[in-house]
Amino acid sequence: MTISIALLGAGRIGKVHAQAISRDPNAKLCAVTDAFPDAANAVAEQYGCPVRTIEEIISNDTIDAVVICTPTNTHADLIEAFARVGKKIFCEKPIDLDLKRVKSCLQVVKDTGAQLMLGFNRRFDPHFAGIKHEIDRGTLGSLEQATIISRDPGLPPYEYIDVSGGIFRDMMIHDFDMARFLLGEEFTSVQATASVLVDPKVADHNDYDTASVLLTTRGGQQCTITNSRRASYGYDQRIEVFGSLGMCAAENQRPVSIEVATSDGYLRPPLHDFFMTRYTDAYAAEIAAFVAAIADQTVPQPSGQDGLQALILAEAALKSLREGRAVDPAEIG
Amino acid sequence: MTISIALLGAGRIGKVHAQAISRDPNAKLCAVTDAFPDAANAVAEQYGCPVRTIEEIISNDTIDAVVICTPTNTHADLIEAFARVGKKIFCEKPIDLDLKRVKSCLQVVKDTGAQLMLGFNRRFDPHFAGIKHEIDRGTLGSLEQATIISRDPGLPPYEYIDVSGGIFRDMMIHDFDMARFLLGEEFTSVQATASVLVDPKVADHNDYDTASVLLTTRGGQQCTITNSRRASYGYDQRIEVFGSLGMCAAENQRPVSIEVATSDGYLRPPLHDFFMTRYTDAYAAEIAAFVAAIADQTVPQPSGQDGLQALILAEAALKSLREGRAVDPAEIG
Amino acid sequence: MTISIALLGAGRIGKVHAQAISRDPNAKLCAVTDAFPDAANAVAEQYGCPVRTIEEIISNDTIDAVVICTPTNTHADLIEAFARVGKKIFCEKPIDLDLKRVKSCLQVVKDTGAQLMLGFNRRFDPHFAGIKHEIDRGTLGSLEQATIISRDPGLPPYEYIDVSGGIFRDMMIHDFDMARFLLGEEFTSVQATASVLVDPKVADHNDYDTASVLLTTRGGQQCTITNSRRASYGYDQRIEVFGSLGMCAAENQRPVSIEVATSDGYLRPPLHDFFMTRYTDAYAAEIAAFVAAIADQTVPQPSGQDGLQALILAEAALKSLREGRAVDPAEIG
Amino acid sequence: MTISIALLGAGRIGKVHAQAISRDPNAKLCAVTDAFPDAANAVAEQYGCPVRTIEEIISNDTIDAVVICTPTNTHADLIEAFARVGKKIFCEKPIDLDLKRVKSCLQVVKDTGAQLMLGFNRRFDPHFAGIKHEIDRGTLGSLEQATIISRDPGLPPYEYIDVSGGIFRDMMIHDFDMARFLLGEEFTSVQATASVLVDPKVADHNDYDTASVLLTTRGGQQCTITNSRRASYGYDQRIEVFGSLGMCAAENQRPVSIEVATSDGYLRPPLHDFFMTRYTDAYAAEIAAFVAAIADQTVPQPSGQDGLQALILAEAALKSLREGRAVDPAEIG
Repeated sequence: MTISIALLGAGRIGKVHAQAISRDPNAKLCAVTDAFPDAANAVAEQYGCPVRTIEEIISNDTIDAVVICTPTNTHADLIEAFARVGKKIFCEKPIDLDLKRVKSCLQVVKDTGAQLMLGFNRRFDPHFAGIKHEIDRGTLGSLEQATIISRDPGLPPYEYIDVSGGIFRDMMIHDFDMARFLLGEEFTSVQATASVLVDPKVADHNDYDTASVLLTTRGGQQCTITNSRRASYGYDQRIEVFGSLGMCAAENQRPVSIEVATSDGYLRPPLHDFFMTRYTDAYAAEIAAFVAAIADQTVPQPSGQDGLQALILAEAALKSLREGRAVDPAEIG
Repeated sequence: MTISIALLGAGRIGKVHAQAISRDPNAKLCAVTDAFPDAANAVAEQYGCPVRTIEEIISNDTIDAVVICTPTNTHADLIEAFARVGKKIFCEKPIDLDLKRVKSCLQVVKDTGAQLMLGFNRRFDPHFAGIKHEIDRGTLGSLEQATIISRDPGLPPYEYIDVSGGIFRDMMIHDFDMARFLLGEEFTSVQATASVLVDPKVADHNDYDTASVLLTTRGGQQCTITNSRRASYGYDQRIEVFGSLGMCAAENQRPVSIEVATSDGYLRPPLHDFFMTRYTDAYAAEIAAFVAAIADQTVPQPSGQDGLQALILAEAALKSLREGRAVDPAEIG
Repeated sequence: MTISIALLGAGRIGKVHAQAISRDPNAKLCAVTDAFPDAANAVAEQYGCPVRTIEEIISNDTIDAVVICTPTNTHADLIEAFARVGKKIFCEKPIDLDLKRVKSCLQVVKDTGAQLMLGFNRRFDPHFAGIKHEIDRGTLGSLEQATIISRDPGLPPYEYIDVSGGIFRDMMIHDFDMARFLLGEEFTSVQATASVLVDPKVADHNDYDTASVLLTTRGGQQCTITNSRRASYGYDQRIEVFGSLGMCAAENQRPVSIEVATSDGYLRPPLHDFFMTRYTDAYAAEIAAFVAAIADQTVPQPSGQDGLQALILAEAALKSLREGRAVDPAEIG
Repeated sequence: MTISIALLGAGRIGKVHAQAISRDPNAKLCAVTDAFPDAANAVAEQYGCPVRTIEEIISNDTIDAVVICTPTNTHADLIEAFARVGKKIFCEKPIDLDLKRVKSCLQVVKDTGAQLMLGFNRRFDPHFAGIKHEIDRGTLGSLEQATIISRDPGLPPYEYIDVSGGIFRDMMIHDFDMARFLLGEEFTSVQATASVLVDPKVADHNDYDTASVLLTTRGGQQCTITNSRRASYGYDQRIEVFGSLGMCAAENQRPVSIEVATSDGYLRPPLHDFFMTRYTDAYAAEIAAFVAAIADQTVPQPSGQDGLQALILAEAALKSLREGRAVDPAEIG
């Protein structure tokens, strides 16, 4: 069985998914759409599929699924539209930056019985998935603490910051999802701190560039998350989970694994400098999981609900920051 | 110039310091005392020095300095007694578990102009000192975040827990000192979480065995500290500091640095399983620094004030935990 | 400009190259041939290209180049045939196991002015290429010593051993090429040792499974090569080069980069267990280099001459082994 | 029981052993001698023992053992003299640079039934000993290959080279011993190469500065040894042993284990720059083993015979180099 997939949005991340779809032996890119005709045409030409309007894709019964890579503010509407016609949906995170909108969208998903998978790509990174595998097979015993360090190579453009929802909703949301995914528990306490240390102009854009959060589950498990928008040495993406029997850590990744020893010491090259090269394998595995879930008629993970929970943690972190206290996510919304 | 040092307390840590003194070419162990005559005699015999009473040491003008390794509840009284007779004082941390008593003791130190060095041995670990060196020479740029993970190999005896002051005052106090030492700033916000995950009996002894803290300076620098009283893989002691130009991390230490590759994978041996073997070099360097400060007539570091500040952070963490809010250490005392 | 490439041989390595060609935006797989119709049809179907006979490919003017992945004993004939019709040729190593045949084939290549690239894929591994890059930019100063360790995960089938030409011509030939490539000099002395330690039946097939070689250049540069046909921990592929200013080493690669710490110690997963997953990136980069050389009208590297020199080193190693002396490759042929 | 030890030779290595003896609770430094009175007096003063002549030490019945650290050309005579009076003997390697003299000396040792331990300190390095431990417990299965890389931080003085016996007898002899110690077999084939690459003046002193050797046992086990007299990045001391079940490698050691990540990459400090700081623990463990063997009345290892065998391998390497062929050590002497 080959799954027919239409691509909605042919920008940077859309192209990544187009390539992943084209290389998946069980999937076929059958249509592409984008507000910018040039972008759509480029993908259409490269992968040999037609450009279609969203309406055409909605009404085309031969299309099994859509991959939504359009701007964030269109996600919820598109999810609802495709949920109503019974298409399988993969949507880049977030569903929306507004919690109410996310909830109403997920209500539609629920009412229509649609299958929605959310694009938390890091769950599919082979190294992070390796940690999960060790957790699941019991190597670490009962889990007690997690440490997540996530630093971008550099600050995004100010225009991006303006529409991003801020560091907690845009960047740390990946780490919130990972914390939930790995510990397998919901958090009942969120304590946050955040600063502008990288670039003072970030404050003018009502955001932070440096943030840390302390999460606690009802059972007392603890997780620290450390974020910075800039790391001189590349894309710093580390996770470790500690339990009664041991600890598992994922190492940082670099494009070239050599070490040069001179009188200065032993030098290894910097890390990846871009999320797309760092997470190439993760993006491919993510689409493969979406395709496999459709083929096997199982529920794709992570779900819309996972997206909602991560967003609630981001809101709780913001509330903790404003009120200088530990916030229970149950207070949110 | 050879510094004459009397050792007060010939227990486990006392013996470590006796050895360090005996190996320091600029120091001489000239007397030892202990409430248990056997303990004093053993050290006296091994290092060829007489057993003396505390009173004899106080009144002996040929003794330049004392190293205090007696039980915690005697520290403050001894510091005061030796401060009043003008001896240089090295005291194992903490000065006292009670903040008021620490303050009154430090007042005596101040009034007498005594020189007091406090035993935060980790500052003298060559690897952590290596981080400090990189910070001081500007390699990391302006400092932004620190991550400290400190896990003991195993739970101490319950009787120890009962008199320890609890995980924040006994264990994390080392990390509070290290955070202050490395970042070079005072913290204005402390957020804490703590649980009993290792051994439920710890709760019966009114303590926690698993704790994490989030510290923020006035300038927005952030530090996370993660503690556990038990790590299956040994004595986990990691520090990293991140700044505008880069990051510096100290690796864990193991007694044997080999790697065995089999069909199971690549295995390196566990870490040190005991603080004394892990910090052998640090203890030697600590005493050497004390001796050098006396010889050079400089002020030994870390000071009694450093001990006070670390204790205040521990108190702030406890208050944050109880009140579920960010606590400014300025609120304490 | 898109390069039209025909694939000769649709077996295991043929499929790897088919995929690499299909993913290269500057290349197009335009025909496939194989003695087994099923194999040819499978590739033809997956990549949407016709099955053609060798004769059809020879006579088709729209085909720019061929990639030869047929059995070794057909390589020389095919190279000559395609050289004579002016097609660009990529051929899997070796050209032939017989030195005379290699030489006569390369004479045809020379006479026809054909462009022949030989499949020493490891030159294109990003990590080994990283070493080369450091050498070329002078980081290591003048080169003095190289250490190459190459161990297969497991013994190949006996039938493969029978036609392989033996461990020196089949396996160590990659390391001979790498030694020449990295040091940039020809060797004037070859000293070899070889044993059957992995599986006594290897001796029945007139081969060795464990071999080491010591190479010296006229200028006194030294290279040790260590081979084994079996490593319990995976595909062990390490190279380091040492010079007057420093040393550069490429680390082994594993599919999952995690570390699990338990009471047993710190365990990282085994290495890749298959040359195709280990060298995925190398195979893609190799075909890209072939395509780029055609497009840019430059001479593709490594050349047929490189294949000849590596084979001569293998012959010299065998001669050294038989005669118990250092052999100058100039003695060969 | 405390072992009374006299130190013969109070130079650089003599001081290392004096310190090791003084720190060993089961040993006592009871006398020191040196051709230079100042050197003897300095050790005597530091460790509180008398200066004595060699004759006085020979005739003193209260002295159990001697540690010989005098110039190489006095070793054999001293060993014989102390063997004849029944003292236990620890002697720095080598016994002599002349094979005949070594043999006649060992004959005296044998005839007198003396106990002689030779100073191959690296056997006592905790990391190399860790490899041996893994071998002995069977982790690696049957042994097949060893790789030893040993590079000095820098060239010794020319005067040292003149009396050293050359790179094979002076430097690689440690690696020959280690190869025998780890593989537990004698070698039947030695193939060598050597060059002057570090400093052309080394040739004027009739020595090489860069050498590699290929050793094979009767059973076909292989060992490569790579030496250089200069490494920009410090004292490079690596050993790995490979067997049917796996591989064990000892990592290089550095004084400060930190890693600094900047835009240049991840930098760890250089290795130790001096054999004394690199092998501090090994020297202490070596003397402890000598003392323990005396106390326990067991035969100390490594023996004089071990010294002889290593020297024979060095001679075989030189012969291989001169004659351009594989040399069986049985040919030597």
